[in-house]
Amino acid sequence: MILDATIRAVLGAEGSATFLTNGADGPHLVATWQSYLEVVDDETLAFPAGGYRVTEANLARDPSVQMIIADKRSPAGPAIGFRLTGAAEVQSGNALHERLKVKYSWCRGVVVMHVKHLERILG
Amino acid sequence: MILDATIRAVLGAEGSATFLTNGADGPHLVATWQSYLEVVDDETLAFPAGGYRVTEANLARDPSVQMIIADKRSPAGPAIGFRLTGAAEVQSGNALHERLKVKYSWCRGVVVMHVKHLERILG
Repeated sequence: MILDATIRAVLGAEGSATFLTNGADGPHLVATWQSYLEVVDDETLAFPAGGYRVTEANLARDPSVQMIIADKRSPAGPAIGFRLTGAAEVQSGNALHERLKVKYSWCRGVVVMHVKHLERILG
Repeated sequence: MILDATIRAVLGAEGSATFLTNGADGPHLVATWQSYLEVVDDETLAFPAGGYRVTEANLARDPSVQMIIADKRSPAGPAIGFRLTGAAEVQSGNALHERLKVKYSWCRGVVVMHVKHLERILG
């Protein structure tokens, strides 16, 4: 299980999550909020796409992505953060998109990230 | 003035700040905490470097960097975030490093980021 209890606890803390895609002109950073990250299964995250036009174009070219999540105020212990690497795509018009639209009416699609590797950072 | 009152207010909120450098093998993400970011002047940020070995090697090769900062709970208004782009280097053994060592005894150097451009993200 990649997205274990520790990761889920970090996602339970509010904060920004940074998402990196790779474009022809170089890396591109966008952000979402940790509270917007939905754990679809033990190795898959999903979050709403409002804008993210460059992100979507980059993913069509190169699905490799990175993400940073963190929690400085963890009641369970010291400050903690993780670098997640994997692959992602934008999905729309499916059940997952319909489900996220209930909470995020503005979402034109869903970024689905398949997490392949986790590294502890910060501390 | 690039680092204006709005940016300083975001930095005044705790949260992770993501820092991107460009390596020969692709982009590399690390994080620090917004409370660790010191505004040196109206276009310069500094933060302690503990590990950051890959970051330092990347900066020696290519000084171009990006950073994401954000605040979801801003008492002054809605959720807000920024993408900062610029150039950076690691400095050590100077007055700035000595000053940061007082607060961060573990810092082996200081990342100094010259911010050239700001873009609003999130919202």
